[in-house]
Amino acid sequence: MARIVQKYGGTSVGDVERIRKVAERIKLTRDQGNEVVVVVSARSGVTNELLARAKSLCDEPSDRELDMLLSVGEQETIALTAMALHGMGVDAVSRTGAQAGIFTDKVHTRAKIQAIKSETIEKDLAEGHVVIVAGFQGINEDGQITTFGRGGSDLTAIAMAAAIHADKCEIYTDVDGVYTADPRVVTDACKLSELSYDEMLELASSGTKVMQSRSVEFAKKHNVVFEVRSSFNFNPGTIVKEEVSYMEKVVVRGVSVDKDQAKVIVSNILDKPGTSAKVFRALADANVLVDMIVQNVGRQGIANLTFTVPQGDSQSAVKLLEPVLDEIGGGQIAIHEHVAKLSVVGVGMKTHSGVAATVFQALADNEINIDLISTSEIKISIVIDQDRADEAARVTHAAFELDKIGD
Amino acid sequence: MARIVQKYGGTSVGDVERIRKVAERIKLTRDQGNEVVVVVSARSGVTNELLARAKSLCDEPSDRELDMLLSVGEQETIALTAMALHGMGVDAVSRTGAQAGIFTDKVHTRAKIQAIKSETIEKDLAEGHVVIVAGFQGINEDGQITTFGRGGSDLTAIAMAAAIHADKCEIYTDVDGVYTADPRVVTDACKLSELSYDEMLELASSGTKVMQSRSVEFAKKHNVVFEVRSSFNFNPGTIVKEEVSYMEKVVVRGVSVDKDQAKVIVSNILDKPGTSAKVFRALADANVLVDMIVQNVGRQGIANLTFTVPQGDSQSAVKLLEPVLDEIGGGQIAIHEHVAKLSVVGVGMKTHSGVAATVFQALADNEINIDLISTSEIKISIVIDQDRADEAARVTHAAFELDKIGD
Repeated sequence: MARIVQKYGGTSVGDVERIRKVAERIKLTRDQGNEVVVVVSARSGVTNELLARAKSLCDEPSDRELDMLLSVGEQETIALTAMALHGMGVDAVSRTGAQAGIFTDKVHTRAKIQAIKSETIEKDLAEGHVVIVAGFQGINEDGQITTFGRGGSDLTAIAMAAAIHADKCEIYTDVDGVYTADPRVVTDACKLSELSYDEMLELASSGTKVMQSRSVEFAKKHNVVFEVRSSFNFNPGTIVKEEVSYMEKVVVRGVSVDKDQAKVIVSNILDKPGTSAKVFRALADANVLVDMIVQNVGRQGIANLTFTVPQGDSQSAVKLLEPVLDEIGGGQIAIHEHVAKLSVVGVGMKTHSGVAATVFQALADNEINIDLISTSEIKISIVIDQDRADEAARVTHAAFELDKIGD
Repeated sequence: MARIVQKYGGTSVGDVERIRKVAERIKLTRDQGNEVVVVVSARSGVTNELLARAKSLCDEPSDRELDMLLSVGEQETIALTAMALHGMGVDAVSRTGAQAGIFTDKVHTRAKIQAIKSETIEKDLAEGHVVIVAGFQGINEDGQITTFGRGGSDLTAIAMAAAIHADKCEIYTDVDGVYTADPRVVTDACKLSELSYDEMLELASSGTKVMQSRSVEFAKKHNVVFEVRSSFNFNPGTIVKEEVSYMEKVVVRGVSVDKDQAKVIVSNILDKPGTSAKVFRALADANVLVDMIVQNVGRQGIANLTFTVPQGDSQSAVKLLEPVLDEIGGGQIAIHEHVAKLSVVGVGMKTHSGVAATVFQALADNEINIDLISTSEIKISIVIDQDRADEAARVTHAAFELDKIGD
């Protein structure tokens, strides 16, 4: 007997027929003698429907009311999933985020989990129930409903797996696992059977939409081994864990493209201590996620600061920075929204020479212009023109012969 | 400045355009300097959609999961209503049943309110918010979400008005108030400007669908004066309160028809002490609402017991009673589903001779057969063939000249 957490995303529970299929899979896991905790998202489309209604009533709905509104999506799914299991004779009980003991901070729409008080879930399991937990949501100390933002249900699953010391955590989605590149763009992309947290993190933050970084970070921090797999078939997926044993020669594990990027250029600012801090403090306070940051210092202590943010945040970034520029003594702001980020990811990349050179050569051979470059231990990211992004992924994938490393 | 509770039903908040209209009306009330607490139902249709999904996954969804599922309807509406108010610059905050401090017993889908802890609402009002409360739902001492059954949002409004000592309680619906008969059936029916709790109770329990009995009972018990009016216009509605000053001659106040009735006949049972008690205890334990009860004792201590229940409960009534018959020494059960109940309601009816005679004569003149008769202080109810019910309402309405008593 194992203790298993399964998470089903919005497309997996998109309608009653799919919910029934999910229930069948849960029943199978239960019938094998396992304890099962299931985390579900809202039916795909529901969140957008609710948001459309909200926007038609109020230009800028308050975060608190958005959480009140959006949390109903998962609440519907947990009840329906529990009912589907009942219909199959399986003991099951649904739990809202609050009932599951998921406590968060007070930041609405982007709440962070502070603690999971798992007494109720443990009791449910001890009584023989399959427990269906609403993903994406929690409760704060004031009794307010909070939500976690995009990818929130993955976070619920990973955090729940950590809290109840699950033996396995399975993230069911609409793809078979993590690929060396987006198979819709790079047709010969291969599925990876294993991946380290760090590689998954870099892939996630680089636009591979399988999971959000925060969930992978949480898994890494709490050492939760998880498997990304499809709810539509029984193929093995990709297992993500701390240590992965690769063949020596495999360095680059994947190529990804993130088109939801805007480049913000803050130019002609005084290069003195504290200037950058003020800029990024203002963005951080407003929860704007800054990705790549590049700074050049030019003539006479005048600096140019360039960074990327999600496209939806670029306008508010400008609004936030205008008063900061006044404070730090002037400068100009410009946005380029038509960019994309290409990332090449692999543990041990730094110790293998030539990875960067191979990328740059592949792009140069195809006359794709490089705008910004940023590197980490296991990743090289390059900002390029959005229109060339898919082509860039294909030529880079080919340059590293990634069609040959999968399973 | 007054403290006003307003309740808007499902059709009043049926879509975003109607929610906006409701918000405008709330704003108007707020702008007049009043403290406003608003109770809203789920958008009309939502509950049925959710139920359809539930039924497609499980033949008999558990009551606990039904509550989990159905309570999302109101939660959506409170958030959207608060957003609509924000969009108009009105301070507002939404509250689920749990957040509003509405505590119930543990009976799922038909929970009873045990207490309202109004501290949060009082604090919200003190801070200048319009408070939008989810109708129909509460929380029990185990932290489970409970719902109140049909008409539950009215109950929330009346109970909330009692708890916060509101000066007014306005029940907004899709009709202008309470009429002497259903205007769709009796075209010259008149709107009543005032009505006593008891009259309203008898009308409610007689099939006039404006409000459920339990809400009126709650209002009577806690002396909450309320007004039933339309959310689609500004016409005055019907005020329901303890004492109503009528002209001497007005005795009959309304005629109503309830077609959701089934007649259950338990025949050939032994007429000994405790027999009826056993029958009705079994029904009460299963929360089957029994309405009219008539018993005849015939030859040699053999009794026939006839009663009416909502049509949806008739099959389960039979199932419940079969073991009871075995216990009490035999008998037969039959159901007649094709019946309706005609009721004539008015305070002081008993002290005016001839009311019953007038009803019976009107029916006899039109050859409508009388099946069962039951009378109370302020009501005569008659079970008749369902096909003749509307006609019976019209001829009775005319016999009492009810087209002349309204306002």
